[in-house]
Amino acid sequence: VSAQNRQFRLGARPDGPVKHSDFELTTEPVPEPGEGEVLVRSEYISLDPAMRGWMNDARSYVPPVGLGEVMRAGVAGTVVASNSDALNAGDAVTGMLGVQEYAVAKPQALIKVDPSLAPLPAYLGALGMPGWTAYFGLLDIGKPQPGQTVLVSGAAGAVGGVVGQLAKLHDARAVGIAGGPAKCEYIVQELGFDVAIDYKHEDVPRKLREHCPDGVDVYFDNVGGDILDAALARLARKARVVICGAISQYNSAEFQGPKNYMSLLINNASMTGFVVFNYFSRYPEAIAALTGWHAEGKLTARVDVAEGFENFVETLNRLFKGENTGKLVLKIA
Amino acid sequence: VSAQNRQFRLGARPDGPVKHSDFELTTEPVPEPGEGEVLVRSEYISLDPAMRGWMNDARSYVPPVGLGEVMRAGVAGTVVASNSDALNAGDAVTGMLGVQEYAVAKPQALIKVDPSLAPLPAYLGALGMPGWTAYFGLLDIGKPQPGQTVLVSGAAGAVGGVVGQLAKLHDARAVGIAGGPAKCEYIVQELGFDVAIDYKHEDVPRKLREHCPDGVDVYFDNVGGDILDAALARLARKARVVICGAISQYNSAEFQGPKNYMSLLINNASMTGFVVFNYFSRYPEAIAALTGWHAEGKLTARVDVAEGFENFVETLNRLFKGENTGKLVLKIA
Repeated sequence: VSAQNRQFRLGARPDGPVKHSDFELTTEPVPEPGEGEVLVRSEYISLDPAMRGWMNDARSYVPPVGLGEVMRAGVAGTVVASNSDALNAGDAVTGMLGVQEYAVAKPQALIKVDPSLAPLPAYLGALGMPGWTAYFGLLDIGKPQPGQTVLVSGAAGAVGGVVGQLAKLHDARAVGIAGGPAKCEYIVQELGFDVAIDYKHEDVPRKLREHCPDGVDVYFDNVGGDILDAALARLARKARVVICGAISQYNSAEFQGPKNYMSLLINNASMTGFVVFNYFSRYPEAIAALTGWHAEGKLTARVDVAEGFENFVETLNRLFKGENTGKLVLKIA
Repeated sequence: VSAQNRQFRLGARPDGPVKHSDFELTTEPVPEPGEGEVLVRSEYISLDPAMRGWMNDARSYVPPVGLGEVMRAGVAGTVVASNSDALNAGDAVTGMLGVQEYAVAKPQALIKVDPSLAPLPAYLGALGMPGWTAYFGLLDIGKPQPGQTVLVSGAAGAVGGVVGQLAKLHDARAVGIAGGPAKCEYIVQELGFDVAIDYKHEDVPRKLREHCPDGVDVYFDNVGGDILDAALARLARKARVVICGAISQYNSAEFQGPKNYMSLLINNASMTGFVVFNYFSRYPEAIAALTGWHAEGKLTARVDVAEGFENFVETLNRLFKGENTGKLVLKIA
């Protein structure tokens, strides 16, 4: 065990894409767990689009990361020292431990996971928060009915890939929008989507007319921008638009509003936003369902693994360039 | 009874505000009612913001008015000849009879109203379709709870004025946005709103912070544009945004999308669109409720009466200039 703990601390409010100069790479002694606490060694850092928003000094569903604070991030790791009866050294856990190599935490802030059932980083993806996000957003807000058409953007990403698979598990059609032929092949061949639309090379409005002839009943939006407008233009009556994210906009100073929002009026449709934290009390339900489907071979949980703690900034930016397929994590141990 | 029937027919698709040259003023013989039909003489033509959208050649909740067709409009008038047992000459009725002095209709397409309970044009306003729009949009979608804050734009208009009154009848706070001191005084003094914000002379975001310190629980939007964005920025958790119209945008080639729509995500809020026609089967419920409140003196139904059939175009444009207070009608008989 190294005696040092490296950390990425937020040094400045980024303007556009994050840069190295927005962070301070600090080194501290590994902390000691207090009474009732455990020490976790990070093995995988989760890279999530929402992290970009947490760096802005704006009112949101969580406070912004303060200047000088360790950058907020999900982590999967191993308990290396425990002063608690709830967890033992050697236990695998996930939690919001930040971009650092070690962290002290209380057991109630951690989730114990079983690496014999799935690779550890899968618990940061389809079996973790992105999976829960897909689960509650699609099933609780989108409410797809058998035979209905579910459209999802960012379909090759951590959340979008689960949305499509859950749609299929609920007997709906799954149409995914992703960037490039490789991702499109991935979501159809590996994840079982019915159709993929390559927004980088295809005319999205035309493809939506072709592949959603009866309209879109549920649109799960991870990207915002022009793709949200194209989806709005194609809504079915009483459609549900689920606003989960807007990755195309996170590096912009001002968001592009959906100019086709009056499609909600024409179609008696709704657009509802959520964050997974709203469903905290129901996480066990999502965990049980997703791990069950995974064990039955019905839920694929691909992880895109980058390496090297020092590569945090470049790796985070890969999300916004659309360079990851499946859940993006940074392996650091 | 004149033997002639003057009509405004749509002659061209307007570009921006409607012009005289977009219409053809035609004169025809007064039609004869067929078997089971009645002849109605128009007395008041309803001017509604939605009429502008009906002139565009675009997919919507109703087909566009065809070129050469009589312009679609609500009308209040009197049966002057009847070949039906359902209605007698002398009966007052409303219906979608178009911008013309006479029309033949089947009784099932008309609503018989009682001018002894309220002035005839009120049945085109608070006791008619705008009232039903407010009723279903606010109560069915907005669902205000006692003590919650209901914000409505276009608050001095036909729909907005009823929304605020219904909010008060349901023990919610009513905050209205209107243009100019006279309208602001009207909604507070005559309609009973708690607060008015004058968007022409006041800083709307600042006034919303001041008058909605706990956020907006229900925002009933009639205007779109910057005011929609200001309201989104002020939503309370689990707020409901009701999209009823976007009068600030109807003369634009492209709508301004709400750039603050991610407030839906931050606040776990929803934005739902509707048109009153969705509630056709429940019109009797709204009619009974609204006429009941009106009879009890709890619902004010002000009408802004313009005169002269030939002034249809200028009168319609008054809506988009914000020149009417209460329901705008054109008296023609």
